[in-house]
Amino acid sequence: MKISDEIRTELKFDNKGLITAIAQDYQTGEILMLAFMDLEALEKTVKTGKAHYYSRSRNTQWLKGESSGHFQVVHEMYIDCDADAVLMKVEQLGGGACHTGYRSCFFRTLDGDVVGDKAFDPKDVY
Amino acid sequence: MKISDEIRTELKFDNKGLITAIAQDYQTGEILMLAFMDLEALEKTVKTGKAHYYSRSRNTQWLKGESSGHFQVVHEMYIDCDADAVLMKVEQLGGGACHTGYRSCFFRTLDGDVVGDKAFDPKDVY
Repeated sequence: MKISDEIRTELKFDNKGLITAIAQDYQTGEILMLAFMDLEALEKTVKTGKAHYYSRSRNTQWLKGESSGHFQVVHEMYIDCDADAVLMKVEQLGGGACHTGYRSCFFRTLDGDVVGDKAFDPKDVY
Repeated sequence: MKISDEIRTELKFDNKGLITAIAQDYQTGEILMLAFMDLEALEKTVKTGKAHYYSRSRNTQWLKGESSGHFQVVHEMYIDCDADAVLMKVEQLGGGACHTGYRSCFFRTLDGDVVGDKAFDPKDVY
């Protein structure tokens, strides 16, 4: 994977220097999580093939899986029409993406029902 | 659809009053687009069953499909673990979500290959 020169000039970071990143299971199409990347996190993701993000609350870059072992191996990367969002098709190691233990961070409906699948027990991981 | 009282108190808008919203095809799982919502756009989406967004560039709410007829009929809505992103499973009317005529806004790989399917000719629509 690489970032083409043309897309590199198009990339549109917000006023905090971030773009949005979606992680989608490369086999099932399930949306696993949504987070943010700065340019360096994007470049590290492309270079290493493992998803790196930028935490808005902790103001720091992070390698997904660094503490949990639940790395996301990136199979494909897409950019959207206005070049401010990235879609990654990933292989989620460890069974789940969410720190709560659910497979996906989107484990609740907006009306409050818990519908997601538990993938691990957070106390075994964090 | 509704927003449960518990989730309403959890909703975490950014400093511009926005949350992120992903539209995913309810049948194929394809990611169609990523955009933003303020509380009112979220409430209108829930009330009408059609996706409403907030444009950061135009500083205005918009009903997806209002000018193109390409409405997004919302079948399911999910909220993520930290309540700052919404996932909608939608039925995309008119064949495509992207103003460029592609079915998905993510029609290019990060290395610049165009891989998405054309759904309509923008000049017939806008």
